Amino acid sequence: MKKNKLVVIGGDAAGMSAASKVRREQPDFEIIVFEKSEYTSYSACGIPYFISGEVETIEELIVRSPSEFIKKYNIKVQTLHEVLEVDTDNNKVLVHNYADKTQFWEPYDQLLIATGGKAFCPTVENHTSDGIFGIQTLTSGIKVDAFISKHQPKKAVIIGGGYIGLEMAEALILKGIKVTIVNRSKEVMNSLDPDMGKKVHDALQNLGVTIYNSESLSYFEEKDGIVSAVVTDKKTIKTDLVILGMGTSPNTSFLANSKIKLSERKAIKVNRYQQTNVKNVWAAGDCAETRNLVSKKPFYIALGTVANKTGLVAGTNIAGGNLKFPGVVATAVCKICVYEIARTGLLESECKEYKIDYVTTIIRSKTRAGYFPGAKDIFVKLLAEKKTGKLLGGQLIGEEGAAKRIDVLATALSSNLTLQNIIDLDLSYAPPFSPVWDPVQTAARKLIGMI
Amino acid sequence: MKKNKLVVIGGDAAGMSAASKVRREQPDFEIIVFEKSEYTSYSACGIPYFISGEVETIEELIVRSPSEFIKKYNIKVQTLHEVLEVDTDNNKVLVHNYADKTQFWEPYDQLLIATGGKAFCPTVENHTSDGIFGIQTLTSGIKVDAFISKHQPKKAVIIGGGYIGLEMAEALILKGIKVTIVNRSKEVMNSLDPDMGKKVHDALQNLGVTIYNSESLSYFEEKDGIVSAVVTDKKTIKTDLVILGMGTSPNTSFLANSKIKLSERKAIKVNRYQQTNVKNVWAAGDCAETRNLVSKKPFYIALGTVANKTGLVAGTNIAGGNLKFPGVVATAVCKICVYEIARTGLLESECKEYKIDYVTTIIRSKTRAGYFPGAKDIFVKLLAEKKTGKLLGGQLIGEEGAAKRIDVLATALSSNLTLQNIIDLDLSYAPPFSPVWDPVQTAARKLIGMI
Repeated sequence: MKKNKLVVIGGDAAGMSAASKVRREQPDFEIIVFEKSEYTSYSACGIPYFISGEVETIEELIVRSPSEFIKKYNIKVQTLHEVLEVDTDNNKVLVHNYADKTQFWEPYDQLLIATGGKAFCPTVENHTSDGIFGIQTLTSGIKVDAFISKHQPKKAVIIGGGYIGLEMAEALILKGIKVTIVNRSKEVMNSLDPDMGKKVHDALQNLGVTIYNSESLSYFEEKDGIVSAVVTDKKTIKTDLVILGMGTSPNTSFLANSKIKLSERKAIKVNRYQQTNVKNVWAAGDCAETRNLVSKKPFYIALGTVANKTGLVAGTNIAGGNLKFPGVVATAVCKICVYEIARTGLLESECKEYKIDYVTTIIRSKTRAGYFPGAKDIFVKLLAEKKTGKLLGGQLIGEEGAAKRIDVLATALSSNLTLQNIIDLDLSYAPPFSPVWDPVQTAARKLIGMI
Repeated sequence: MKKNKLVVIGGDAAGMSAASKVRREQPDFEIIVFEKSEYTSYSACGIPYFISGEVETIEELIVRSPSEFIKKYNIKVQTLHEVLEVDTDNNKVLVHNYADKTQFWEPYDQLLIATGGKAFCPTVENHTSDGIFGIQTLTSGIKVDAFISKHQPKKAVIIGGGYIGLEMAEALILKGIKVTIVNRSKEVMNSLDPDMGKKVHDALQNLGVTIYNSESLSYFEEKDGIVSAVVTDKKTIKTDLVILGMGTSPNTSFLANSKIKLSERKAIKVNRYQQTNVKNVWAAGDCAETRNLVSKKPFYIALGTVANKTGLVAGTNIAGGNLKFPGVVATAVCKICVYEIARTGLLESECKEYKIDYVTTIIRSKTRAGYFPGAKDIFVKLLAEKKTGKLLGGQLIGEEGAAKRIDVLATALSSNLTLQNIIDLDLSYAPPFSPVWDPVQTAARKLIGMI
């Protein structure tokens, strides 16, 4: 058998899932991974819980270290190596070694790009000041933690009211830091419809968070190199710390001059096998685009689950297999203190954009039988196609026991279920776990009456 | 429009769901409900939590009282009225009024039988002694509670190691009563495979429960009219209280001489519209048979969820609608102290009986990200068809956050998903709620490797 050499750019979820899968299937492959940071295979999603102190050491977030991959899996991981350029005509990549500051060209037979994403930040005045952090990488998490220890900030501004913003709000509240959220859209959590976002808003206010909606970052002020204020289009907010929660950008700027096709928002275009437009070049994880199974449109989402899945699919196919990744229904979940927030499928705004005739409703139910101690409120919003009753999306907010119910709706979306199908589902029931009609079924029962 | 008169026998979940639906759709129908007890629309599933004291008053278990139905819904509920006989040739039922001890024939245009189930008990010596209780009805729950208050039992024997037995074990433990379970099958929870049942066994032993498996009730001993011992085929167990958990029998003995067709285990045979073999006679809830969507066979299951759903379907059709109940996948869930146990689909024994070539595996995972505080063990067992990879069943045991994951598998079974489909599902992930691969997906990933 011809020897094959796989080069992987990026050593986190997607890259290492793929590399591990190729190793299991193809013991003879040569596998080299170039990773810009010192770390591999870590849970970026765990960073807020490291910063809050709930997770005590950063090592707990690391699933497998570079040395483990080298020793146990015969995967040659080179940390502190950044790929600067890809030459697909000659099948080689230009690598910068941060340790000795040298550069070299590395040839490949197969190339997997898994460079992940970075916190989006507009290049406004003072955007490089100390005290301004994204939290997309373990390195950035370590920096935030060190900054908090050293400077003991009393107040923080989070720019963006999405998942990262909310999880960091919780983390900073737990550290005793006063939190202000500056949010460009008209309500926090714009991955929910505004009527559900309003409930998150109320929950955040209950926790003492100050929220400025419909307000945009203009620039930062700094003092002695450290951020001292966030200036918006409406006001100046003094602060000791800034967290960027304005979304994730694919790490693809090094591909600007390559022949690899990118989407408008610079995510790598791939087919369902995770192949790019260039032969023997694959992409997976937060640097790549995927598809939305509900809208049937190309879709960008930066999530650990998708990175693991697309990495596994890419690895399977690189190793000679034949596996397709169908796409996502855009499921996401988030906890902020006692509140659990989850969503899947399309929003009202998306239905309107795609000219889908839909019906929608919000119901209030309980997480357990109403009489059972600890039963908490849960709000469920469903959207369905008016003509067919087919589920289009769902959103949940509630306390303990609320969030994971979104998985039934995510499974229903993947299976093209209608509201009647959801009502018919044989979901589990016992008083400690649910009302006799699960809240998602109660919502479906109400909504089917509106068709 | 011709006036229609609906008689409903039984005023709990199925009967009142149907009656309420008919009232909403057909304001002109005359609706009479005959209910043997004093209560309507209550949560029988909540009885263990009333006995344990977690639910403080029996009234909390009642969703709607007879007077509410009469006043708000114009449904004539007659409590303490038992139907003794059904004459389908002349469209009338013979009713016994316990209040004044009279009997009368009541004519109907449409008849819904929703008489529920009762605790199965063999007619062994002393089976009518005081201190021996099923807990299928609110009345029986009140009796158990009163007996415990009056006699302050120190020890109890539960006959049967299924859901009711386990939930009552928890309730009695919380009352400080020493519990022994006598279980006829070779492991407790025979709705699980024995390898998973063994884990429940271990959990029960951790809670101080004594378990005798593969042991059958022979008869009871009594003293002064009160049960004093359970005699099995192996030993005599002194006791102050006996709870019957040997399963539920459909309440259909009053139909013995009617033309209404019953199954071998005396459940009423119905089609997917909840129609019996006799015109204008319908049945729903624990007295009726249903279908198993996985095995495609007739199936008997006594569960509140199914009673509500089949009641709603019967009501819709009685009111002139056209709704089918597809059947169940046999989902069930149970909590015993910190342990959560859930199941859906087929067991190994059923696969063997139906000659299905299957693969199966058990995995251990965590309910949250491994590093997240409060992450607990969860065991997931999956069964899939070897040839196609189609999911056949799933079983879970774990602590907080384990049980409701069964709903993804129940939805997958209803949608005929394969293991690969389950791996592809876009399930929610954040560290407080799940590992990045949900435990059910981890199990699917392992099992797909065995095909």
